[in-house]
Amino acid sequence: MNAAFYQPVDAAVVPRFAGLSTFMRLPAVASPVGLDIALAGIPWDGGTTNRAGARHGPREMRNQSSLMRRVHHVSKVAPFSLANIADMGDVSVNPIDLQDGLARIEAGMAEIVAAGVLPLCAGGDHLTTLPVLRAVARARPVGLIHFDAHSDTNDTYFGQNPYTHGTPFRRAIEEGLLDPRRVIQIGIRGSIYDPDEHGWAREQGIRIIYMEEFVRRGSADVMAEARDVAGGQPTYVTFDIDSLDPSVAPGTGTPEIGGFTTREAQEMLRLLDGVDIVGADVVEVSPPFDVGGMTALAGATMMFELLCVMAANVGRRRATEGGA
Amino acid sequence: MNAAFYQPVDAAVVPRFAGLSTFMRLPAVASPVGLDIALAGIPWDGGTTNRAGARHGPREMRNQSSLMRRVHHVSKVAPFSLANIADMGDVSVNPIDLQDGLARIEAGMAEIVAAGVLPLCAGGDHLTTLPVLRAVARARPVGLIHFDAHSDTNDTYFGQNPYTHGTPFRRAIEEGLLDPRRVIQIGIRGSIYDPDEHGWAREQGIRIIYMEEFVRRGSADVMAEARDVAGGQPTYVTFDIDSLDPSVAPGTGTPEIGGFTTREAQEMLRLLDGVDIVGADVVEVSPPFDVGGMTALAGATMMFELLCVMAANVGRRRATEGGA
Amino acid sequence: MNAAFYQPVDAAVVPRFAGLSTFMRLPAVASPVGLDIALAGIPWDGGTTNRAGARHGPREMRNQSSLMRRVHHVSKVAPFSLANIADMGDVSVNPIDLQDGLARIEAGMAEIVAAGVLPLCAGGDHLTTLPVLRAVARARPVGLIHFDAHSDTNDTYFGQNPYTHGTPFRRAIEEGLLDPRRVIQIGIRGSIYDPDEHGWAREQGIRIIYMEEFVRRGSADVMAEARDVAGGQPTYVTFDIDSLDPSVAPGTGTPEIGGFTTREAQEMLRLLDGVDIVGADVVEVSPPFDVGGMTALAGATMMFELLCVMAANVGRRRATEGGA
Amino acid sequence: MNAAFYQPVDAAVVPRFAGLSTFMRLPAVASPVGLDIALAGIPWDGGTTNRAGARHGPREMRNQSSLMRRVHHVSKVAPFSLANIADMGDVSVNPIDLQDGLARIEAGMAEIVAAGVLPLCAGGDHLTTLPVLRAVARARPVGLIHFDAHSDTNDTYFGQNPYTHGTPFRRAIEEGLLDPRRVIQIGIRGSIYDPDEHGWAREQGIRIIYMEEFVRRGSADVMAEARDVAGGQPTYVTFDIDSLDPSVAPGTGTPEIGGFTTREAQEMLRLLDGVDIVGADVVEVSPPFDVGGMTALAGATMMFELLCVMAANVGRRRATEGGA
Amino acid sequence: MNAAFYQPVDAAVVPRFAGLSTFMRLPAVASPVGLDIALAGIPWDGGTTNRAGARHGPREMRNQSSLMRRVHHVSKVAPFSLANIADMGDVSVNPIDLQDGLARIEAGMAEIVAAGVLPLCAGGDHLTTLPVLRAVARARPVGLIHFDAHSDTNDTYFGQNPYTHGTPFRRAIEEGLLDPRRVIQIGIRGSIYDPDEHGWAREQGIRIIYMEEFVRRGSADVMAEARDVAGGQPTYVTFDIDSLDPSVAPGTGTPEIGGFTTREAQEMLRLLDGVDIVGADVVEVSPPFDVGGMTALAGATMMFELLCVMAANVGRRRATEGGA
Amino acid sequence: MNAAFYQPVDAAVVPRFAGLSTFMRLPAVASPVGLDIALAGIPWDGGTTNRAGARHGPREMRNQSSLMRRVHHVSKVAPFSLANIADMGDVSVNPIDLQDGLARIEAGMAEIVAAGVLPLCAGGDHLTTLPVLRAVARARPVGLIHFDAHSDTNDTYFGQNPYTHGTPFRRAIEEGLLDPRRVIQIGIRGSIYDPDEHGWAREQGIRIIYMEEFVRRGSADVMAEARDVAGGQPTYVTFDIDSLDPSVAPGTGTPEIGGFTTREAQEMLRLLDGVDIVGADVVEVSPPFDVGGMTALAGATMMFELLCVMAANVGRRRATEGGA
Repeated sequence: MNAAFYQPVDAAVVPRFAGLSTFMRLPAVASPVGLDIALAGIPWDGGTTNRAGARHGPREMRNQSSLMRRVHHVSKVAPFSLANIADMGDVSVNPIDLQDGLARIEAGMAEIVAAGVLPLCAGGDHLTTLPVLRAVARARPVGLIHFDAHSDTNDTYFGQNPYTHGTPFRRAIEEGLLDPRRVIQIGIRGSIYDPDEHGWAREQGIRIIYMEEFVRRGSADVMAEARDVAGGQPTYVTFDIDSLDPSVAPGTGTPEIGGFTTREAQEMLRLLDGVDIVGADVVEVSPPFDVGGMTALAGATMMFELLCVMAANVGRRRATEGGA
Repeated sequence: MNAAFYQPVDAAVVPRFAGLSTFMRLPAVASPVGLDIALAGIPWDGGTTNRAGARHGPREMRNQSSLMRRVHHVSKVAPFSLANIADMGDVSVNPIDLQDGLARIEAGMAEIVAAGVLPLCAGGDHLTTLPVLRAVARARPVGLIHFDAHSDTNDTYFGQNPYTHGTPFRRAIEEGLLDPRRVIQIGIRGSIYDPDEHGWAREQGIRIIYMEEFVRRGSADVMAEARDVAGGQPTYVTFDIDSLDPSVAPGTGTPEIGGFTTREAQEMLRLLDGVDIVGADVVEVSPPFDVGGMTALAGATMMFELLCVMAANVGRRRATEGGA
Repeated sequence: MNAAFYQPVDAAVVPRFAGLSTFMRLPAVASPVGLDIALAGIPWDGGTTNRAGARHGPREMRNQSSLMRRVHHVSKVAPFSLANIADMGDVSVNPIDLQDGLARIEAGMAEIVAAGVLPLCAGGDHLTTLPVLRAVARARPVGLIHFDAHSDTNDTYFGQNPYTHGTPFRRAIEEGLLDPRRVIQIGIRGSIYDPDEHGWAREQGIRIIYMEEFVRRGSADVMAEARDVAGGQPTYVTFDIDSLDPSVAPGTGTPEIGGFTTREAQEMLRLLDGVDIVGADVVEVSPPFDVGGMTALAGATMMFELLCVMAANVGRRRATEGGA
Repeated sequence: MNAAFYQPVDAAVVPRFAGLSTFMRLPAVASPVGLDIALAGIPWDGGTTNRAGARHGPREMRNQSSLMRRVHHVSKVAPFSLANIADMGDVSVNPIDLQDGLARIEAGMAEIVAAGVLPLCAGGDHLTTLPVLRAVARARPVGLIHFDAHSDTNDTYFGQNPYTHGTPFRRAIEEGLLDPRRVIQIGIRGSIYDPDEHGWAREQGIRIIYMEEFVRRGSADVMAEARDVAGGQPTYVTFDIDSLDPSVAPGTGTPEIGGFTTREAQEMLRLLDGVDIVGADVVEVSPPFDVGGMTALAGATMMFELLCVMAANVGRRRATEGGA
Repeated sequence: MNAAFYQPVDAAVVPRFAGLSTFMRLPAVASPVGLDIALAGIPWDGGTTNRAGARHGPREMRNQSSLMRRVHHVSKVAPFSLANIADMGDVSVNPIDLQDGLARIEAGMAEIVAAGVLPLCAGGDHLTTLPVLRAVARARPVGLIHFDAHSDTNDTYFGQNPYTHGTPFRRAIEEGLLDPRRVIQIGIRGSIYDPDEHGWAREQGIRIIYMEEFVRRGSADVMAEARDVAGGQPTYVTFDIDSLDPSVAPGTGTPEIGGFTTREAQEMLRLLDGVDIVGADVVEVSPPFDVGGMTALAGATMMFELLCVMAANVGRRRATEGGA
Repeated sequence: MNAAFYQPVDAAVVPRFAGLSTFMRLPAVASPVGLDIALAGIPWDGGTTNRAGARHGPREMRNQSSLMRRVHHVSKVAPFSLANIADMGDVSVNPIDLQDGLARIEAGMAEIVAAGVLPLCAGGDHLTTLPVLRAVARARPVGLIHFDAHSDTNDTYFGQNPYTHGTPFRRAIEEGLLDPRRVIQIGIRGSIYDPDEHGWAREQGIRIIYMEEFVRRGSADVMAEARDVAGGQPTYVTFDIDSLDPSVAPGTGTPEIGGFTTREAQEMLRLLDGVDIVGADVVEVSPPFDVGGMTALAGATMMFELLCVMAANVGRRRATEGGA
């Protein structure tokens, strides 16, 4: 398509273990201007209530993303030909001060959004999605397709602390960043604190699909519903790596057995094709708890899956506009 | 239900990484008196013929059980509201003397049983189930629902040694602890020593469901049969972690590929609801061979699944008897 | 059958952790003469473009194969009773000189083939299959049933290097070692370099079954087609461990998520029963990237599955010939 | 020699892998009243600027402390006969709110100090020492013998954040908790931000002994100076595990090569005999970065070394007072 | 010297990762007849009171011994030219029955001793040394040079069990296998159960050199005393890998910080030159607790050091007797 | 000090886990022009005869170098103020073709040398030093200060292969790249193939200091001799990470126990101050065999030590020239 688009290093020329480590082996750029999609790291886990480490997620997902190639083998989407994509580096963070950390992440994302660029982020813990939504949904609420073992709509922890990786979507709804009737959560499972733990979420209108319902219905049926919920309107996609089974994603803060296989997750992400994705992230990859890099590899591949559907959107839009 | 029941530490108050490590973050108690269900460790692997390490299983299952919460997300059972449950610590063992080890385990279990308390044990290798059965089935034989890759009904090893983790259920039948017509083994697989290796078991009346039959029939059908076999009579449930696939349970002495996913195992354990469980265990978690704690996490979660069905029984019985 | 056949060490006499480490605990022999099937290691990864380490594969597969027993629990095949099988050790290799390495491997295999013995090899990276085919298909092209995440039919790397683990089957077809119309590749997946990356293979007549087609059709249907493709003629079977999902086989050079479960792979290998297998291998097990030995265990078990179908063939042939 | 003192579980009766995991296998108690020395965990790493994980330190040091026995083999001190010692559990923490975290730790420590009990703490990152000092030095400044690779007297990070694990001793001096002329830092090394990085510390009167000076002078000479600096007055001892070489303590947030051997560290701690220790800690053990538990073992053994010198003080005081 | 002696595989011909894994890459032989020194494994840890795993020691020491070459770089001793040496495989063991295990090990060793061959053994836990001594010292007591963190002269465990890896040398003295006045223990350290824990040993006449005395005196002085204690009479040498510091030998059952560096251990073993060594072992290498194979590498190298001094003795004796 | 020099990212502003991973957190640049010192990776291990993996060394040394700061705490050298330094990325390599690999590395280095820039390289196996020397010593032979466990002056392997990581310095002398009378090797140890293995090296005039001589003499004395050997003439410094003890550097292809502590190595590198270093490297860091990143951390710190002495030279030269 456009020869001027950034291209990844060619693994038949430079071996995968060589060269600086960037997302998908793309060039690192300092400004989002001119990009269609910005790959950005959010190395922050200040909201983690138990096992920290997601601050190291972006670096390891960059490392493992060296295994990605140029074309999706099923959809045949070639993202780097359809859209201008680069590694924007990591946004500024603050590991010591929670509020300052949230403000910095929002500022970094706002710069990308202001440039009309779609962010595809590598977290970080799930609280990092809150400041991303503050940037992405500044103008109006967005929908959310949310893959996770946990609803993350709790209220407070450790006294009255409202900001943890267990609360981002409650805060996002309270702040008007999400339209709760356009929010769907898929893969929820694991023991809960209270029989009515998900009551608040349901009252807001959030659709929760427990893992057991997913197993019964399968990817195609569930994703048809997800697309209905998204409703053709601007939608954010957030993929918590703990939605995957610990057998393939042990390196995360709150593992829950009985999760998605990578095959199921890939099927679902491919069925996002055509959804109006205004931003996306893969979060909660925690390298200190990983074994053999397998969690980071899964995370990097999920980023590639998301990138392909986002780039296909860009390509279609450009084709419509007569461009590229 | 009963405010006097022991309660786990609240993770929204005390983080999961803090505090002493007990099963499900429950109080540690010295006596079973007053309990409905006793969580007890059996740190012993004296019957292990190959890779030892299950002696370290209880401690690591305690650690990983800090990730459990209070309510089952599917059945909505809240075990700590339905039953009085605590961590009884570990029974006395002897790592050097096999017969003394068996005697000590039996004595520890007999104390629990004598108090009218249901034991839910964390092994230990599978030979630990034999002395537990000696305590539980002292009065009369019980049924057995047995999840495992191996039948564990061999006869002798290394000369004429009758007591190893490959022989407990043959010994239990010989000792009259099990009614073989009420024994079902699910998930059996892996290469065998002899084409007729399971002949003795079948002759006794044991129902063996190989993994291949399970795959064909599915959880619901298999568990319907298991409930039939149990026959509404007192039944012990033993869950060998090597029934799970090595992808999620590598930390065990005798891994066999092609095992259960955790999802399948959870489905089956949930279908034990209503079975008259007189005791249960999760065995063969071997931390020295584990990676990233995933096997111990699977083991701890299986204990939680078992605990929920056992507590539901207690709750029903209490309701029938006029309540807690 | 034949009491003179080599037998594995009995684990009820000598524990699995004891004794020298050979494939399946069989005797190590210096010559193939008198064998039906030779288990041989090919400790070489000179064709690896990214993460090396498959040179250590044979040693670790030997270690893990100590967990194998004597009889297949489904087919009831007892390979060591049906065929004379031993560990031939490792063929000569050269880790420094690629062409000399290929020549040495071919020579080692040719010795086995010349003795009328079927080789069952433990690689090594996938380029090791090329010199094996040079020995096995010296007289005429063979068919190929190929389990892999990657087609391995690329042309050149790093300038014009034609020999890497991404190119063996293109070279084998060019050299007339494979009949491309009798080649089937199962499990192909993962991002690709070019939308037409598999065009050359298809033009030759190779049948490629992507993972997504496999998921749709299932093992039985796919293997029926594989048997059709093999067409009752001499066929080589190559099992790249990266066809398995990284959850069970992280220790490999080019992991791709979304792979086969071991259960699916075992189902498929069992359905090779009756195929005229003239040789087979399990490749790309890379111990330095493995965790907890699980990849080597999977590899060793796949060797056992292949051994059983190969030995059943030998047994039938012998029965027909009135022999053994 | 008071038979009423708490005693550790006897490893010749209960194997080390059995039983609940407490510091030194001592009983867990809820109140400090009646103790001489309280072993307490501080599971908090909210001040960590790079690799978190010290929040998991107390649990793993408890695990590894199961290898401790009853008597020091050099000094022959039998701490559990000289002093009443128990595991107080972990103080309350807050992983999300830094200031609340500091306040909770101080409150927990103040309870111990108020009971006239000496705290021996397991961190936690090095910022945890600040709230401990706030409790211990509430009445008047104390001296400090500080083993570390880093001076931890920096001013601010990430904007103007004054509280990190790189700043506790600057804050402690500013708050009047430490008498800087009675502070000695031993083992400082590693690259620095600024040629005058330690200028502020020296201006306050802190004595810094770089690793190179230690190597030149040896343990005995250095510790003679440390005792001079302590000056026979109340002194706190803080042992950062990163003072040890990464070969024996890889599991820490900021490893620096060229550190102490455990032998050197043990020599130094033994030479604290007679120093008026009012409290002590071992900090920065970070299990997610540990390998084989070796860092936690080193940390637990350093706690035992400190316990022996503290208990000897108690014993002497009691003997003088005519007591025990 | 003698071209007929067994020679190791040449690593400039066959890479170290290739070929079957034997001690020092020597041929595996079935009978000791004709050997001067037999390398034998004792895969047994039935006496282990805490962390088992030494049963896997011989296999991993074989693996790591592939890094050994032919000539000692300091003494220039070429063991395979001076003596006929081979890998005898592992002696028969019994992981389930302690007394039968001891009997089998003794029988295996007795066969070697009866052939006039010197055993150099790879354990196994330290209790394995007892049956070796029963074979080696059948005729008359021998002396002992013993490198260890622990004296291993305790009496009983877990009730009245007299046989554990904490008691072998007390039993050996009681059985008349050792002349206690010719026993020296070097490197003893770590906390103890009782102030007089080593009193019994000293009363027998055993010379105990604590680590602190070693540090003060150095290798040369200590080994001069060791040679005096051995007194030019037949002496057994036992090297417990836990005498080394955990930084280099984490993979052992009872690690104690503050141990020997490998450099110090090598110095000491080299100073055994000329001692009349009638057998030797390296014990307590526990692969499940090892990291990166470093403990097994240390163990294999210590075996090579011992082999060189033993082979030099053989060479001298042969030269005296008129040659090989 | 030149404000225009490249500066590392400030860790008090951007946490060490954030941002792209470059050597010392310096900017990545595409051309050497304008630099004084170029940090470059050589991700290649084509000469490795046993355990490969050094190809992954540069990436992991970049990761661990994020722990470096700006000023040397002993010499107070501030390299980034004295010299213009940047990360040049990795040179081009070829993992499949040895001769092409050597040619590419030489070409990459020649570009740096041609720009008048000093290369400081991260290997790669030790054969990578040969093409670096071809670039650095193109005009005339240089001296060599060589830290290593192995002399690497063997002749051929696996038939007549002259290029392996065991032969680079023999080749370099044959090619006239090194003046053998100005070559010193420090730390040589470990078993050898032949009593006269180092005879060729010594005949050329190479000075070999075995580890035992180093232990006897100490760093200061040995380095005084090294400086004499270098003779004030242009000298290359090569640091094989296996010169360090496996306790701190397990992640390498050919570990040898009894090596340098990091403290000793740092002392020696600091004593290079004033030597006319024309280039330097740290080689043989093999991440697949590393544990906890400790080998890469040691490697990165050795690079920092070398950088400080090289930058001090640049600073002095500039001061003399009236510059900077």
